[in-house]
Amino acid sequence: MKKLSVLTMFLSQVFLFCLFSSADEGMWLFTNAPKDQIQKEYGYTLTPDFLEHLQKSSIRFGNGGSASFVSSNGLVMTNHHVAVSTLQKLSSKSQDLVQNGFYAKTLAEELKCPDVELIVLMQITDVTETVNQSVTEKMTPTEAEAARRAIINQIEQVAAQKTGLDKCEVITLYQGGLYHLYCYKKFTDVRLVFAPENSVGFFGGEPDNFEYPRYNLDVAFFRVYENNKPYQAKHFLRWSQQGAQNGELVFVSGHPARTDRFRTIDHLSFQQDVEYPYLLNKLRRREVLLQIFSEKNADNARRVSSELFRIRNSRKNRTGILSGLQDPKLITQKFNDDEKLYNQIVEKNLIDMEKNNPWEKINTALQTWEEIYIPYDLLEKSEAFNCQTYKIARNIVRYVIEKEKPSEKRLREFQDLNLEAMKANILSVQSIEDDIEILKLTDSLGMYVEYFAENEYANGEYEGLNLLANLSPKDRAVQLLKNTKVKNVAERQKLLASDLKTLNESTDPMIQLALLVEEPSRILRTVYDEQVAEPLRQAYAQIAQVRFLVNGTSVYPDATFTLRLSYGKVAGYVDDNGKTIPPWTTLQGTFDHAAEHNNVYPYNLPQSWLNNKSKVNLKTPINIVTTNDIIGGNSGSPLINQRGEVVGLIFDGNVQSLVSNFIYTDAQSRAVSVHSSGIKEALSSIYQATRIVDELGK
Amino acid sequence: MKKLSVLTMFLSQVFLFCLFSSADEGMWLFTNAPKDQIQKEYGYTLTPDFLEHLQKSSIRFGNGGSASFVSSNGLVMTNHHVAVSTLQKLSSKSQDLVQNGFYAKTLAEELKCPDVELIVLMQITDVTETVNQSVTEKMTPTEAEAARRAIINQIEQVAAQKTGLDKCEVITLYQGGLYHLYCYKKFTDVRLVFAPENSVGFFGGEPDNFEYPRYNLDVAFFRVYENNKPYQAKHFLRWSQQGAQNGELVFVSGHPARTDRFRTIDHLSFQQDVEYPYLLNKLRRREVLLQIFSEKNADNARRVSSELFRIRNSRKNRTGILSGLQDPKLITQKFNDDEKLYNQIVEKNLIDMEKNNPWEKINTALQTWEEIYIPYDLLEKSEAFNCQTYKIARNIVRYVIEKEKPSEKRLREFQDLNLEAMKANILSVQSIEDDIEILKLTDSLGMYVEYFAENEYANGEYEGLNLLANLSPKDRAVQLLKNTKVKNVAERQKLLASDLKTLNESTDPMIQLALLVEEPSRILRTVYDEQVAEPLRQAYAQIAQVRFLVNGTSVYPDATFTLRLSYGKVAGYVDDNGKTIPPWTTLQGTFDHAAEHNNVYPYNLPQSWLNNKSKVNLKTPINIVTTNDIIGGNSGSPLINQRGEVVGLIFDGNVQSLVSNFIYTDAQSRAVSVHSSGIKEALSSIYQATRIVDELGK
Repeated sequence: MKKLSVLTMFLSQVFLFCLFSSADEGMWLFTNAPKDQIQKEYGYTLTPDFLEHLQKSSIRFGNGGSASFVSSNGLVMTNHHVAVSTLQKLSSKSQDLVQNGFYAKTLAEELKCPDVELIVLMQITDVTETVNQSVTEKMTPTEAEAARRAIINQIEQVAAQKTGLDKCEVITLYQGGLYHLYCYKKFTDVRLVFAPENSVGFFGGEPDNFEYPRYNLDVAFFRVYENNKPYQAKHFLRWSQQGAQNGELVFVSGHPARTDRFRTIDHLSFQQDVEYPYLLNKLRRREVLLQIFSEKNADNARRVSSELFRIRNSRKNRTGILSGLQDPKLITQKFNDDEKLYNQIVEKNLIDMEKNNPWEKINTALQTWEEIYIPYDLLEKSEAFNCQTYKIARNIVRYVIEKEKPSEKRLREFQDLNLEAMKANILSVQSIEDDIEILKLTDSLGMYVEYFAENEYANGEYEGLNLLANLSPKDRAVQLLKNTKVKNVAERQKLLASDLKTLNESTDPMIQLALLVEEPSRILRTVYDEQVAEPLRQAYAQIAQVRFLVNGTSVYPDATFTLRLSYGKVAGYVDDNGKTIPPWTTLQGTFDHAAEHNNVYPYNLPQSWLNNKSKVNLKTPINIVTTNDIIGGNSGSPLINQRGEVVGLIFDGNVQSLVSNFIYTDAQSRAVSVHSSGIKEALSSIYQATRIVDELGK
Repeated sequence: MKKLSVLTMFLSQVFLFCLFSSADEGMWLFTNAPKDQIQKEYGYTLTPDFLEHLQKSSIRFGNGGSASFVSSNGLVMTNHHVAVSTLQKLSSKSQDLVQNGFYAKTLAEELKCPDVELIVLMQITDVTETVNQSVTEKMTPTEAEAARRAIINQIEQVAAQKTGLDKCEVITLYQGGLYHLYCYKKFTDVRLVFAPENSVGFFGGEPDNFEYPRYNLDVAFFRVYENNKPYQAKHFLRWSQQGAQNGELVFVSGHPARTDRFRTIDHLSFQQDVEYPYLLNKLRRREVLLQIFSEKNADNARRVSSELFRIRNSRKNRTGILSGLQDPKLITQKFNDDEKLYNQIVEKNLIDMEKNNPWEKINTALQTWEEIYIPYDLLEKSEAFNCQTYKIARNIVRYVIEKEKPSEKRLREFQDLNLEAMKANILSVQSIEDDIEILKLTDSLGMYVEYFAENEYANGEYEGLNLLANLSPKDRAVQLLKNTKVKNVAERQKLLASDLKTLNESTDPMIQLALLVEEPSRILRTVYDEQVAEPLRQAYAQIAQVRFLVNGTSVYPDATFTLRLSYGKVAGYVDDNGKTIPPWTTLQGTFDHAAEHNNVYPYNLPQSWLNNKSKVNLKTPINIVTTNDIIGGNSGSPLINQRGEVVGLIFDGNVQSLVSNFIYTDAQSRAVSVHSSGIKEALSSIYQATRIVDELGK
């Protein structure tokens, strides 16, 4: 605990006190909902029926968001910004659904979406004992990891056969303290019903993102089909007629992607020193790159809009987290929590700290992690080759190598259970645009050269590699992308069916590059798997298990992009300037906010809004803040009241909530939703989407 | 020459050939103009009269651009982008001269500009011998630096008295191979005559910057006054009636700011490895910061527009240089040049390489430079405290400390000759805007924390400092800026008149911070001055002197933001895609370029252009490219023909020219000017600025 001692010196100068109540904290498992806390704080009794209904009405959207059923006819509600990559795929130069929005006046007009997969969690089983029994104390980390992976694969395969459900997954909770088997129903016939124009779906753009007050209509509707007919949902959420009142208890059911709440103070320090500065430099360089490209013309802007949004969103998010990590107030609290737990464990003699100190194991793993952090990112995570074409070539090379091995010896993503998905991914038709590919690959090769020259590891270990082939980054990118054939799907198919010898003899420069990277990349992967990921997993599992002994079930696990329940209340707050921020804004505010900015981008309300202003009830609430504990991945989650009715749609957190990556606070931190009444008012008065309004009203 | 050997290995794999002719290369001294080359290549005889007239018609604009007299009545022409910071200062929320442009219909309407200083070079004297005689071989680097500084101060003071000219400066040329005394006439009553709207002055914005073809009206006119009357210029440039033809010989007279043409290959490698990656990360983080701030509303955008332009410009520029440094084609050529010179020196036994190898001295200095590079930037260059208020506090602290010493013992910027300017700078009324100050200081303190935590030097050397006072970057920035009194000019005056004891007892947090930084910052400054700057100066002077022996006067010195002459010809080129780019564009192209982008920002032509399109002769050339060797600082330089007439106005280089920081190429690299005919056509047909057109016509 090297850094603890340094921190102690530092913290001795800081006034120590607990700034934050943690009343509404937690992203709870549905199997361990905080019934007592809710009963005590709000006098409300959470029932099993309520939980089951909510669970089965909740949807995980593709690979990056949440959603819910909001009618018996399979109508699905999520955020516009969750839908936007699908909108982009459905768009062309002549028909821009991102910019212009979409409304299917009839069922027949609903637009089938490519590559969208929705899943609903149907069954939860605790498999902790089975998983843990597969690992014995005598095993090395590598053996332990292999044994655990093997039993997990087996559990998943058996469950898939037994339940007949489409997707069965073992979820690691509490950093390995618990293992749950989640079985999902899957929907792939998903059609677009309604999306507003981007200018109001992402009203206020980048400057308003993660800010409050807000005035957005960040909503989209899809419909799920089975056998070409609307899916008849047994579980769906009804629409609240009046919305939520100030102070009212509300729930969020969704899929928070990731939190780092239970990291040790040294691990947070690692994130502050190593991880975030590097990632932010990378994000900013890509933001600037795509920003300039976008400014060249409208077509460029359209083609990179969703990637640029993702980058800017991620940059702002991580900037907020890093600000928190640099804030002694918050770090003091984390330090105290960490120290308290450590002392409790020592006092109760729960771990032999002389021989088996998990804090030390974590620090050892982090030392290794720091050494390989940048080369791992550049080579194993392919960040030096930031284009779709390289990723295809890389996956082809790995597919061909891995398929020769028995499943359990392969990299996880190539094991039998995942092999078909990987193959489908490699073959999926992708719109590969040469100019964007060259732009991104040139930049990332340039970044590689910068680090390659500076980073001792890379210099020593990789200098023989000659990845640039004695060309400048730009010339190399052009050479690779003009001459590779993997842009062609039939060529990919042929290569997948071939063997390593054939690949080695191939003249495709992108395949040759991927082959060249393969050896050092494997070494990095092995170091990471064995000396970083597995020791961290084991050490955190060890801490999590004794935390159970100390805290009982009063703790919740870190977010893992699986279904969680959060509770909280509708509540305004006082901002940094001492101003009281009311709990909701109104449609009047949306129009005012646009007018204050001369209706200029990104505050330009679309024509539909300007034309229909007179029909709108301007007092209708549009956005609303609550104390719910949420994070990225919760986008599109329903906000519901005690009767299980929709009162809102989570779409953001304010800037003070960004630190919730590692700590929950509720002084100013708020979850931001589109208000249920605002959604309905816009649908009826602005979009005349009576078909949808009627369906929600049922 | 550690890296040379590594490079040799690498280069042995590279096909070596000379890609570039260097026909029109050079930023020549007016005292050593390339008469023979011009005679030989163009059959044109450069006369002393031509040179003198051109020299005295040329103007250095403030601290960052070039200009020229274009009428006998003191009319001055420069770029809109050189004028923009002045336009911003003349603007308010109600009157935005950046956005709306300006035209003074009468002499009386010409607008007096704050803080603008123009200088014209009147006398040039070679003082190399005098300077060199002051330094003896027995002196230590510190003594040598002090002795040289003392004699330079003396030369400058004597010259000021003797010539009666306003500004006398000793200029270091050829890295110390030559010292010239430059005496200038200075003008401070400068008034705005004409500037177009920003949307056409910077037409195409960031995406078109450093690109070609271009279609800009990047021009502005000022007038110089003496005794409240227009200055009667003896030397001024007449306007060409027809502009330049394809292939025609043209000259540029202006102030290229800085090149690194004569750096050793190891020094270029240092720039690639250390300098540019760090600077670009810093520039991109500031670009993103101000970009977001700008997007919030139009007033924000106005208030940071010139700083954001500077950052984006610098980022694009440095990105281009770094791309060149990462290009084996160019580096091979530099390597060969470096090796050739080295071998020539060894062969002719011009330097005893065993005892006195300047290449080794440079490498030793660069090793030290690398060690202190980041802390020096953060502390000594105040980059950790990126706001105006800190810089004022820092200068006050240094002023108070330095004024107690004899002049020659002070830091150069506080020596008698510079002390009044420094004082004026500290006291100059500046519009200090709290929100921008907090934004920038928060970000730069955050950057400091990132490096402070990572950088061993900083950690080891500075950890006792507690610059953040146990606050988060945001909280610290707010605390400093809300409580400092140095925003008040009277307070600054009081502090300047005080002593160190008073400062030490002050409760002003910004003064206290500057005091806290002072000690480590001084140490860094001393290390830099003695172990980096001075050894580099000496080693490069040593190389430059023997280069004279080898090359004679056929070489030109690196750019130093002093007056230079460049020659070249009007010439199109073939771009990367094999497309022939003609040597000029037309006003038709300007309108077409806007239309192709739906007249949307940054391609939105102003209303004046749209309204007057029918009056415009659309065939008139608007931008023109030439092979002149220019660089940043040349902005606003006149492009003139053999008769000394204005045929254009330099405003940019294309993206291929960015590498001219360290190497001149002419395959694709081009200087970009506004065409003289386009300027006149826009003035008359669009702006009805007949007063100016008549004045130019004389």
